[in-house]
Amino acid sequence: MRERLYLFDTTLRDGGQTTGIDYSVEDKRQVAELIDSLGIDYIEGGYPGANLTDTQFFAHRPGLRARFAAFGMTKRAGRSAANDPGLAALLAADADAIVLVAKAWDYHVELALGISLDENLAGIRDSVAACRAAGREVMLDAEHFFDGYKANPSYALDCIKAGYDAGARWLVLCDTNGGTLPHDVTEIVTAVCSVMPGSHVGIHAHNDTDNAVANSLAAVRAGARQIQGTLNGIGERCGNANLVSLIPSLVLKPEFAARFELGVSERQLASLTKVSHAFDELLNRAPYRHAPYVGASAFATKAGIHASAVAKDPRTYEHVPPETVGNTRKILVSDQAGRSNILAELERLGVPVQRDDPRIARLLDEVKEKEALGYAYEGADASFALLARRVLGKVPEFFDVERFSVSVERRYNAAGERVTVSEAIVKVTVDGESLISAAEGNGPVHALDLALRKDLGKYQRYIGDLQLLDYRVRIFQGGSDAVTRVLIECGDSEGRRWSTVGVSANIIDASFQALVDSMTYKLLLAGAE
Amino acid sequence: MRERLYLFDTTLRDGGQTTGIDYSVEDKRQVAELIDSLGIDYIEGGYPGANLTDTQFFAHRPGLRARFAAFGMTKRAGRSAANDPGLAALLAADADAIVLVAKAWDYHVELALGISLDENLAGIRDSVAACRAAGREVMLDAEHFFDGYKANPSYALDCIKAGYDAGARWLVLCDTNGGTLPHDVTEIVTAVCSVMPGSHVGIHAHNDTDNAVANSLAAVRAGARQIQGTLNGIGERCGNANLVSLIPSLVLKPEFAARFELGVSERQLASLTKVSHAFDELLNRAPYRHAPYVGASAFATKAGIHASAVAKDPRTYEHVPPETVGNTRKILVSDQAGRSNILAELERLGVPVQRDDPRIARLLDEVKEKEALGYAYEGADASFALLARRVLGKVPEFFDVERFSVSVERRYNAAGERVTVSEAIVKVTVDGESLISAAEGNGPVHALDLALRKDLGKYQRYIGDLQLLDYRVRIFQGGSDAVTRVLIECGDSEGRRWSTVGVSANIIDASFQALVDSMTYKLLLAGAE
Repeated sequence: MRERLYLFDTTLRDGGQTTGIDYSVEDKRQVAELIDSLGIDYIEGGYPGANLTDTQFFAHRPGLRARFAAFGMTKRAGRSAANDPGLAALLAADADAIVLVAKAWDYHVELALGISLDENLAGIRDSVAACRAAGREVMLDAEHFFDGYKANPSYALDCIKAGYDAGARWLVLCDTNGGTLPHDVTEIVTAVCSVMPGSHVGIHAHNDTDNAVANSLAAVRAGARQIQGTLNGIGERCGNANLVSLIPSLVLKPEFAARFELGVSERQLASLTKVSHAFDELLNRAPYRHAPYVGASAFATKAGIHASAVAKDPRTYEHVPPETVGNTRKILVSDQAGRSNILAELERLGVPVQRDDPRIARLLDEVKEKEALGYAYEGADASFALLARRVLGKVPEFFDVERFSVSVERRYNAAGERVTVSEAIVKVTVDGESLISAAEGNGPVHALDLALRKDLGKYQRYIGDLQLLDYRVRIFQGGSDAVTRVLIECGDSEGRRWSTVGVSANIIDASFQALVDSMTYKLLLAGAE
Repeated sequence: MRERLYLFDTTLRDGGQTTGIDYSVEDKRQVAELIDSLGIDYIEGGYPGANLTDTQFFAHRPGLRARFAAFGMTKRAGRSAANDPGLAALLAADADAIVLVAKAWDYHVELALGISLDENLAGIRDSVAACRAAGREVMLDAEHFFDGYKANPSYALDCIKAGYDAGARWLVLCDTNGGTLPHDVTEIVTAVCSVMPGSHVGIHAHNDTDNAVANSLAAVRAGARQIQGTLNGIGERCGNANLVSLIPSLVLKPEFAARFELGVSERQLASLTKVSHAFDELLNRAPYRHAPYVGASAFATKAGIHASAVAKDPRTYEHVPPETVGNTRKILVSDQAGRSNILAELERLGVPVQRDDPRIARLLDEVKEKEALGYAYEGADASFALLARRVLGKVPEFFDVERFSVSVERRYNAAGERVTVSEAIVKVTVDGESLISAAEGNGPVHALDLALRKDLGKYQRYIGDLQLLDYRVRIFQGGSDAVTRVLIECGDSEGRRWSTVGVSANIIDASFQALVDSMTYKLLLAGAE
């Protein structure tokens, strides 16, 4: 019998502390879906009541398979749990579980909170009890647990015992400052699990010494049964434990696989590379090439002394098979692997094709060529579908853009105010007829979008409900004169959503490509002819 | 008495296997100097005889304090050591130490080398003996040691024993595929050190499971006394053990500091951040913000609740003092920020202000107001410094932009090709004089940048070395007609870097704001009047 190991994702809460990350409510919804697709047990959505975004996010809870958790603080000293506005906001949030953070380092209790050690214990007890009374699963995040344990082991233990006795399901040992090394984690978690059931103990590690993953594994070996972490290891300072590195080791490495069972299925594990990259895409940053398991270089061997041995038997140079995590071997740029990827994607997108169609190879070549130019189809399914259908000869030429121009001008208007004006002109040919339209917009892309959809002749009636939902830009090689990649997400009144990509040295050109792809895809969806 | 622990750097050899890294001889010389400045014990220069760069690099050995090592293979089977051209090239190289790589996994010996297990042992023995006879210090890199040990422990041990008996100073246990987890390293290194003096054992870890640093520390605790790694963890696939993460833990963490002595002085440790960044500079890539110890965010606090405690006593939220590794504390200015954050940031940026200056409150209000509009100062220190100096009345009005316009046009040219053309016109006033400039660019922002800096009158001479390094765009609330935030990073010939932000419904307008801020900041830095 293998023991169950639980995964807890805090990408949306602790991950939100990352420098430069600033989620919108819609971002949070998308990230929650990504995490949920991996089979994680708990998803911490944020801190309702602390800021508007989190409050709004919890107001319409996302439909998730995972248990949904809200984060907050234990009640303030000098107030009853029933009269604490923070606790009230937590209890009002629509969540399955409540995560209560409390200090477990005596020095911090006295310095940062300025209350007595006993008051802190009472706060833990009363807050946990109040959440239990409201029927919630409760977790106690014991802040600074490891530093606290080193300073005053019996007080640190008292804190989590107070939580346990009051009914907390999980006691999470947090290495808040991230400075604890693996052997210390082993020692301290072992000590905790000798006085507390390990099936109630969790680990929350930070990467300040580059040991967050090792610390999490050490805690599990010492008895902990819940691991907290984030997608791609984002988080304050040097980040949190990286679930993307941890999951494959827990599932694939015999020493863990033999002892533990996770909620992540084989198929979910095989989506890991994709999920990791999709998250980076959403954060508008380039995936890290050298990331363990999922990096583009993780299974790449630079030709050399290893090359021939890899050719003889790749397993001798790969610690796990790349396909188990949805990655690919890079030295044998196998048309086989690429081919099956593409076939799976076409199936997913509903593009009918025979498995032995010779045009698949041409499509594979086209994708490789386009990706070398900077296109990325992982985050642009509609552009990929169009490319595939074009190679398979299945996209009608709905319209052709003869030319466009757009101008942006900042000047003083008649009233002496500074104004910025954008206008665009687009000339298209539909069924041999030339149509020219102009529009003003809030910015150049908006003006182009409006002008393009102003008159598409007989197709006009299909595009009325098309909406631009998201627009993201990334520049490669630094500097404004490098290659620009634009990703656009659109939707329509039937709730469909699709994404397109455009690449050019010119941001307007790249944006226009993505707009045209999006409109073409909408016409395809609508069955226009 | 503390034991001596040795550091071995392979940035120039194994690090050269990194995807995208291709050193010139001059690069190698510069990197060697950087590594040497840290007080590393051994620097492995490369593989003389294997390629022209390495052969040339060894032909004029750099003047280093560290011992200089050459890498190569043990002799081929069926040849005597005296007649092996590879060994001859190694012995011809001007190096203090010779690193001989040999296979320690029985399966690999038979599969990749196609020789008998005894032939492999004889090869190790004879090659080590030949290098010893030539008066060199010898290290044996036991390739695939951990996988080999798991498959056939006695043969893996026989390999390193053969090296030891023939006079090798170091027996380096290599986790070549990088898949070994820390507890396995502990177990196997402990076993090795029970039959071999640990003072002769080294560890060479890769990061394929995100545990390279932990594996190196585990090996030291199990008895090994040499650690191999690279600057910033570069290396094939997911990289090698990161010396930049390892060194501070070994020097600063009591459990290691109490037992071991390194060649790295306190002063050298304090140069770590600089060395790490200088190496990235040399590789032409942006330093990783979240890198342990040396990242720009490694000591950055965002959370409001933590910020006030950090102000009370920074040690309670920092696992080591940032200045010990040459890094700095950073309290992020965000809408959660309070007065103490702002004061700390002003001090860091060198903006002189009294703690009780009433204008601080006004600045705080302005920051909050701007952030509500979409500005984000945590990634735009120069824009924050300008805002602060403006509120404090300390920014001269260098130039005023009267108007600008930019146009982008895609059309067919005379040759019938589709082309996209961008041009910009900027009119500025400097010292009451109107100056108008036009420029073409690869895109609208590039054109604006060129036009803006074409003629700034008497300030022109200060901005010649200004360079646009990075350009990022984020749209809020989805859709192209929402708010656009542009972040620009610039640099100059003195190696300074700064970031600015612009926000507008119009992407061009937002970009222009950030460009103008960047130019103004450069003029401030240059002391223009």
